[in-house]
Amino acid sequence: MPMFLNSKDADFDAAFARLLTMKREDSPDVDATVADIIADVRARGDAAVIELTATFDRMQLTPETLAFSADEIETEIAKVSPEERAALELAADRIRAYHDRQMPSDASWDGPHGEMLGWRWTAVEAAGLYVPGGLASYPSSVLMNAIPAQVAGVERLVICAPTPDGVANPLVLLAAKLSGVETIYRIGGAQAIAALAFGTQTIDPVDKITGPGNAFVAAAKRRVFGRVGIDMIAGPSEILVIADKHNDPDWVAVDLLSQAEHDESAQSILITDDAEFGQAVADAVERRLKTLERRAIAGPSWQDYGAVVVVQDMDEAVTLSDRIAPEHLEIACENADDIAARIRHAGAIFIGAYTPEAIGDYIGGPNHVLPTARSARFSSGLSVMDFVKRTTLARMTPEALKAIGPAAETLAKAEGLEAHGLSVRARLERLNDE
Amino acid sequence: MPMFLNSKDADFDAAFARLLTMKREDSPDVDATVADIIADVRARGDAAVIELTATFDRMQLTPETLAFSADEIETEIAKVSPEERAALELAADRIRAYHDRQMPSDASWDGPHGEMLGWRWTAVEAAGLYVPGGLASYPSSVLMNAIPAQVAGVERLVICAPTPDGVANPLVLLAAKLSGVETIYRIGGAQAIAALAFGTQTIDPVDKITGPGNAFVAAAKRRVFGRVGIDMIAGPSEILVIADKHNDPDWVAVDLLSQAEHDESAQSILITDDAEFGQAVADAVERRLKTLERRAIAGPSWQDYGAVVVVQDMDEAVTLSDRIAPEHLEIACENADDIAARIRHAGAIFIGAYTPEAIGDYIGGPNHVLPTARSARFSSGLSVMDFVKRTTLARMTPEALKAIGPAAETLAKAEGLEAHGLSVRARLERLNDE
Repeated sequence: MPMFLNSKDADFDAAFARLLTMKREDSPDVDATVADIIADVRARGDAAVIELTATFDRMQLTPETLAFSADEIETEIAKVSPEERAALELAADRIRAYHDRQMPSDASWDGPHGEMLGWRWTAVEAAGLYVPGGLASYPSSVLMNAIPAQVAGVERLVICAPTPDGVANPLVLLAAKLSGVETIYRIGGAQAIAALAFGTQTIDPVDKITGPGNAFVAAAKRRVFGRVGIDMIAGPSEILVIADKHNDPDWVAVDLLSQAEHDESAQSILITDDAEFGQAVADAVERRLKTLERRAIAGPSWQDYGAVVVVQDMDEAVTLSDRIAPEHLEIACENADDIAARIRHAGAIFIGAYTPEAIGDYIGGPNHVLPTARSARFSSGLSVMDFVKRTTLARMTPEALKAIGPAAETLAKAEGLEAHGLSVRARLERLNDE
Repeated sequence: MPMFLNSKDADFDAAFARLLTMKREDSPDVDATVADIIADVRARGDAAVIELTATFDRMQLTPETLAFSADEIETEIAKVSPEERAALELAADRIRAYHDRQMPSDASWDGPHGEMLGWRWTAVEAAGLYVPGGLASYPSSVLMNAIPAQVAGVERLVICAPTPDGVANPLVLLAAKLSGVETIYRIGGAQAIAALAFGTQTIDPVDKITGPGNAFVAAAKRRVFGRVGIDMIAGPSEILVIADKHNDPDWVAVDLLSQAEHDESAQSILITDDAEFGQAVADAVERRLKTLERRAIAGPSWQDYGAVVVVQDMDEAVTLSDRIAPEHLEIACENADDIAARIRHAGAIFIGAYTPEAIGDYIGGPNHVLPTARSARFSSGLSVMDFVKRTTLARMTPEALKAIGPAAETLAKAEGLEAHGLSVRARLERLNDE
């Protein structure tokens, strides 16, 4: 049974606090192993990557076969059905259209003394995208990571996608092609992250690494952070549905399960102002679980981490939602737009009964790489902004330096930084002489 | 003697590569100590913070005196001279005017099937700013960290500023007041970061922590990252000056020294197309070093990490500058604006002979918290964007779900995520029945 909470209950605050602080992640501590792997790749390059791939993925590669050849890619892509291809192309088009609007603008203007101030955005030169192998090898994630980079103007976009036992995912290769990826290396794990960060004889280093991965990949990304940029370190996924009784309990049930089926550590929560409806949804979940293909994953997730929270009104739902700061938030109730407008902390909001989260996972347009574990309080989903950076600009006129230079000197002196002051003073003396 | 390189020399590439990979940081490994301090603060709260402050800062605090009182702040601020106050106010006004322009815009639009797509920006609720004690207690850094947060709309902005032996910095307190800081705790080190991230009986936790600090502070920020947001982990500061012979060598020399005086690990590099000018600058540095107050710091920085690089033309200067990806870049040459426009990787550019970097450190308007150690390749300086986060929005119409839902189902099936597909299918069945 998942948790049932009611905000009327005496122990609600304590129970809700427990729900918030529930530890769902139990990544093994692989940091020492990962440190060794990174050091090995830095020292031996290709040879280390090839050896580790033989060990972990049972694949014998050479420097020449680290990457898929153009022919291999075409052969794999030919296996994609027309229906799948059309779906992926529609997804790519919609994701691109959404992210096209995210490009930030340069700015420059004149200050009060004729000085120019502003900034300029430029794209990261090279980005590497990690795509997990096996079950969690998702073509949708390729689109969600690569298209923002492509829109940003990243010139060199490469993928590392392990192919355990040589099994490739044709849809992943097609997704890579649709989003402008140049090279796909069939390597994975910490060795792939190390190769992307430091380079090898065959693999050029990149400036930014994004994409999901297992505990080894996450630990490696943490370790190379600073040398290169990384996206977030994502935790288990989560969904919060706010729904009133005017919904089909079965729709809400499958939405909750669509999160639960990702991972036994995933979390699905329903907040409703109607206890009977909450019970009806829980019943519908149990019904669906009987036949769901991934019930061995979704079942434990729902039992261990699922929750139905009954509130007295939708104001309370908004307050509790912001305390959860959910990765995904579905709002299916009267005045859903108004409720959505009052939410402050959420990675993505899906408004109305016709917007199941799965639409956002694949094809809506917004990114599906979103902040987990309450980090929507301070961070955002992946976007074009992750692949650009800003250079600030300033150009003083002699008049501007005369006007504001003395204040800079005063502050430099107060901070005990004499040369800072002298760099202004030397110029002001010349200007005063003229 | 600093390094002298000439791009004509046979061994230039190797020498320049050494310059790029020079290890300047030698932070002690304090991670284990920091882990203990964080655990202690989580377990014992105020009591741990108070004990550690007594040990490290020789200050006996109580829960009631952890923060400065309003009276104490006014008493300290009264010590600031009118000249210093005016300078700080001018700096705050200019920094605010610059950052006001950085607020990103919300967006929403209709897709091809009447669906609504968009995003909304909201401010982080609470931010904590770390201000080092002692020599590196810079009021300018308070403005540079707090004003972007204030502009973003952060409601609760607090500072942790240790006061070793009880000595406070009146200008820091004034800067805090000018930038809307609510509370100033006189605590520092890893214990302050732990208190900000996890809260204590007296100190409410925040969502984001920014600001510079020593090795303990940096290690603590790394450890609490994820629980809260952090800004970058900054390395030693650096400047690159691109200058032709039409400059006063002494101006360039003091600019190089204004970086060198920060820290023995700071790096100052001149790139010039005129070898004689390069030598003249190096001579001017030596002259200035004879009398500079902080020569004991600036001297070793210049000797150990300084460099003069002679290039054949300004095209080469641009190429080398992008390989350095400098934190601060001064461009003082003919067509400086054109050269600036061609630079891709730099934290901040100061254009023309009348824009010494010190202007940017204090009063120009742009932020002085900038990416170090070549990280301008993939990251930006501090800005309003660091204190806001984006929630993506989507609202499908029945028509939109009919149009794009089947593609989502196809992709869900391809990824083996049945419930994802069912969440779309359940709705489409109803719509098809209608």
